[in-house]
Amino acid sequence: MKLVNYREVKSEPVTEEGAKGTTIAWALSEKDGAPNFSMRIFKVQPGGYTPLHSHSWEHEIFVIAGEGILSDEGEEYRLRAGDIALVSPQEEHQFRNDGNQIWEFICLVPNERR
Amino acid sequence: MKLVNYREVKSEPVTEEGAKGTTIAWALSEKDGAPNFSMRIFKVQPGGYTPLHSHSWEHEIFVIAGEGILSDEGEEYRLRAGDIALVSPQEEHQFRNDGNQIWEFICLVPNERR
Repeated sequence: MKLVNYREVKSEPVTEEGAKGTTIAWALSEKDGAPNFSMRIFKVQPGGYTPLHSHSWEHEIFVIAGEGILSDEGEEYRLRAGDIALVSPQEEHQFRNDGNQIWEFICLVPNERR
Repeated sequence: MKLVNYREVKSEPVTEEGAKGTTIAWALSEKDGAPNFSMRIFKVQPGGYTPLHSHSWEHEIFVIAGEGILSDEGEEYRLRAGDIALVSPQEEHQFRNDGNQIWEFICLVPNERR
């Protein structure tokens, strides 16, 4: 059992090349006793973005607050609070905040990522 | 890629024995191309609850709106909007809405549940 408010999870900057104005906070993971998948919280500042990349696992996303663009396989989708999105394996994707408030969303990944 | 607002996902009543006033909506699952885990939305009416049970996999929870009690291994925890909770494998747990508004939360499970 673990209980935490999403605002209280320790966040760190995303330092990967191609990222700007973005933090990640690992809310639930293997370290907490979750064997299969992990919940992270992303906060993207206005003008910020994550790297354009792809990988062999899925993302499952729930938007908490704010809004922004999810680019997926060259298509752009606007994500707002309450929206749920799936980025399927191998899809090239990027999150980009084109608004004027912080964009906050949950993004889950499997623990085995290879 | 799939994009949907959480309010728009088709829900169905939880008919399992020991459940009352609760619906489940499968937002993202294997059917959508998510190989590893699935995102469901629960809505528990005031006075409603899920069965007290346990299983070999984890739940990862994010509370969207409302509040209620998560009973886990005999301890009671109040979950409010913005709270994140992990129910670890084998922990006996139940969700119970003791308030007066609908309690809405996301609850994720691995696709392999056995």
